Amino acid sequence: MKGISDVKGFLCGTGRGGIKKTDKPVERDDVLVIVSEVPAVAAGVFTQNDIKAAPVKVSMKQFSVCEKISGIVANSGNANACTGEQGLKDAEKMVNICEDLTGKKPFIVASTGVIGEPLPMDRVEKGIKEAVKTLGTKNSIEAATAIMTTDTFPKVAFFDGGEFSIGGVAKGAGMIDPAMATMLSFVATDVEIDKNLLQEILTEIVDETFNAITVDGDMSTNDTVFILANGMSKVKIADSNVELFAEGLRKVMASLAYQIVKDGEGATKVVRIVVEGALTKEEARKVARKIALSPLVKTAVFGCDPNWGRIIAAAGSACTGIEEKALELKIGDFVLFKGGRAEYREEDVYRYMKDSDEIVIKLNLGKGKERFEYLTCDLTYDYVRINAEYRT
Amino acid sequence: MKGISDVKGFLCGTGRGGIKKTDKPVERDDVLVIVSEVPAVAAGVFTQNDIKAAPVKVSMKQFSVCEKISGIVANSGNANACTGEQGLKDAEKMVNICEDLTGKKPFIVASTGVIGEPLPMDRVEKGIKEAVKTLGTKNSIEAATAIMTTDTFPKVAFFDGGEFSIGGVAKGAGMIDPAMATMLSFVATDVEIDKNLLQEILTEIVDETFNAITVDGDMSTNDTVFILANGMSKVKIADSNVELFAEGLRKVMASLAYQIVKDGEGATKVVRIVVEGALTKEEARKVARKIALSPLVKTAVFGCDPNWGRIIAAAGSACTGIEEKALELKIGDFVLFKGGRAEYREEDVYRYMKDSDEIVIKLNLGKGKERFEYLTCDLTYDYVRINAEYRT
Repeated sequence: MKGISDVKGFLCGTGRGGIKKTDKPVERDDVLVIVSEVPAVAAGVFTQNDIKAAPVKVSMKQFSVCEKISGIVANSGNANACTGEQGLKDAEKMVNICEDLTGKKPFIVASTGVIGEPLPMDRVEKGIKEAVKTLGTKNSIEAATAIMTTDTFPKVAFFDGGEFSIGGVAKGAGMIDPAMATMLSFVATDVEIDKNLLQEILTEIVDETFNAITVDGDMSTNDTVFILANGMSKVKIADSNVELFAEGLRKVMASLAYQIVKDGEGATKVVRIVVEGALTKEEARKVARKIALSPLVKTAVFGCDPNWGRIIAAAGSACTGIEEKALELKIGDFVLFKGGRAEYREEDVYRYMKDSDEIVIKLNLGKGKERFEYLTCDLTYDYVRINAEYRT
Repeated sequence: MKGISDVKGFLCGTGRGGIKKTDKPVERDDVLVIVSEVPAVAAGVFTQNDIKAAPVKVSMKQFSVCEKISGIVANSGNANACTGEQGLKDAEKMVNICEDLTGKKPFIVASTGVIGEPLPMDRVEKGIKEAVKTLGTKNSIEAATAIMTTDTFPKVAFFDGGEFSIGGVAKGAGMIDPAMATMLSFVATDVEIDKNLLQEILTEIVDETFNAITVDGDMSTNDTVFILANGMSKVKIADSNVELFAEGLRKVMASLAYQIVKDGEGATKVVRIVVEGALTKEEARKVARKIALSPLVKTAVFGCDPNWGRIIAAAGSACTGIEEKALELKIGDFVLFKGGRAEYREEDVYRYMKDSDEIVIKLNLGKGKERFEYLTCDLTYDYVRINAEYRT
C-alpha cells in the first residue's frame, strides 16, 4: 500500500526506544523520522486546547520562524504534555538530535501517548538513532505503525496525481474530538507550492475532514497536522491545477480521518451523520456534531437499535431552531420520521444496522439547502474497558 | 422519609396503567397525581431543547394563561415526545381527565420514557383513575417511584422550615445534561409567595443544582421542574424570610440533583468537580462542565485511575485561557499537579478513589476568585449495557 514513503524525495525511518512505561516487552517501534531530501514548504494545524503539549509549542515556534522544514520526528508512548520547562527542553532536544544526525534542518516534532509523564530521553534518543539509521528503508505502513498508541491498525493514504503525489499517515483512536484539529497526521507531497496557499488549503480541508470526526468528544493536547511540500516533482501549483491538488489532498485527509473513526476505541461501526436542509453550513455542523457526540445515539448504534427519538432529541439540543414537523430522518434507506413517525418495519432497520459496518444517519432539517457530514463511531463496552485500563 | 406528601395541603396518588410497551408484567405504578387542596402559585423551568415534548408545550401554555395551578399529572414509560398533533391532544386529555375526576383545575402535565411512541391513552386513563382514587394515601417514596424509568431508586427530599416546609420528588438517570433543566422534578411548599418571586428563586437555584449535573451530556426533550406553593402554612415569604426559604429550596433541589447523579445509569461513583480560582463564575462553570463531560475522565474514575493528564486536557479544551503553570489539581486531599507534576504516591490516590463513593476533583485555575461545582458520575460497562438494550 502506497503512502508517505512513496512521495518523491521523502524518506521514512523508525526505531524502537521502548518509550512507554510498561512492564510488557516492547513490541513495536515508537519513533518515526521523516526527512525530505530538500527543504520543504510546510503548513500545520494544531490543537486549540489551552493546554498544549511541549512538542506542539516547539513546532508552532519552528513554523513561525522557519521558511522551510526538512524533517519531522515523532514518538508514541508519551505525549510530553503537562511537562513544564523540562518538556520544552526535551522536545527541543528531539529536534536537535535529528538535525545533528541527519545534517538536515530544521525539524519539527510531535508526540502522542500518556499525558504528564516526563519523556525518558535516553530511550527516546535510542529510538531516534535507530530511526535515522533506517531512513529510506521503511515503508508507509511501518511509518504509521511507529506512531500508534491504542490504534489497532496503521493509517496511511495516498493520492496519485499523475505528475505529482500526496501521501499521508495518521494516528488516533481515542481523545478524538473535532473542535479544531485531530491527533497526529503527517502528509507529504512533492508539489511546488506557495506557503500561504498551502496553509490556506490545509486549513480548509482539515475543517471538513479531521475537524468533522469525533470518537469521544475529548480534545487532545497534542493534536497536530503537518504537511510538507518539497517541490521535487517540479509540478508548480497555480490557478490551473490548484483544484486538482486540493482534491487530492482532500481525498488523502478524508481517508485518514475515516480510518481514525473506524479505529475509534472499542468501535464496531462507523456512523456517518449527514445533516441536510439547514439554513447555513454552520447550523448543519452544529446539529450533526450534537448527534455525533450523543452517548445515547452511540450506544443505540452499538445495540443496532433504530432509536430515532434519541437522534432527534440530540439534534434539538443544538438549539438552532429546528421544528419537529419539518424533519425527515433516515437510517440507511429507511425513512423513520417525516414530520411524525413514518411507516417502517423495525426489524428491517435492525437488520440493516446489524449487517453494516457503516451506518448512515441522514437528517433533513427542512429549512434550507446547506449540509454537513460528521463521522463518529458507536460506544461500546470495549471503549470503557480500554479507557478504564489504559494506564493502570 | 418525609417528602412532597408531608407538605401541608398536598396529596399524592399513584396508579398502574402499564404504559411502557413491554412483554414483561407491569411491576410498578407509572402514573403520579399530585393535588393541592387550594390553588397554588406555581413556577416552572423547562428544557431548552428545540424539540419539546407535548406535555412540556401544554404545561408551558398552562403557565402562561393560568394564575394558579391545582395539580400535576405525570406518567413514566412513555415521553410523549415527537408525537405531533396527537401528542398534544393526548397531553391535554391527561389534564382534562384529572380536572374532571378531581373537580380541581387547572392541572399541568409531564411525561418521561421512550421518545416517539404514541401514548396508549386507554392505559394512561386507567392509571390516572387509580391514582386519583388513591389521592392522600400515597407517600413521597411511592410518588417518586411512579415516575421512575431506568432509575434504580426513588428520589425525594424535604426541608423543614419550622412553620413551613418544602418537599420534592425527582426522576432521572440517563439523558441527563445540565444545559438548562433536568429530567422531571416536582416540588411543593406551603408558603405564600408572589409568583414572580417564586419563579426568580426557582430559576436561580435550578442553575446551581439541576443545571450543574450531567450523566451523559444528552439533553432531554422532557426536562421539567415544577414548584407549587399553596400558602396553607400561612407563612408569607417577604424580605425578612426570603433567604431562609431560598436556602431550604436550594437544599431540597441540591439533594434531588445529587440523587439523580448518584443513580446515573451504570454509575458506581459520584464525581464532584470543584473549579476554583477562575476569573468569572462562567469560566469556572465552562471548565467544570468540560471535565464533567469527558468520557476519558469518567472512565478513568471507573478504573480508579488518578489520570490527572486527562483532567487537565479536558479543562484546557474549554479554551477559556488557562495556563499549565498556574494550575493546582487535587483528587481528594492529594495534590497531583501544581504548576507541574506534584509528589504523590499513585497507590494512595488509587486507594482513595477505590474506597470512596464520592470522588472530589478540585482544580484551581490560579486566575481569580470565582468557583463553580459540577456533579457527574463515572462511565461504566453498565451505562453501555443499559443504553444498548434500553428499547430492543
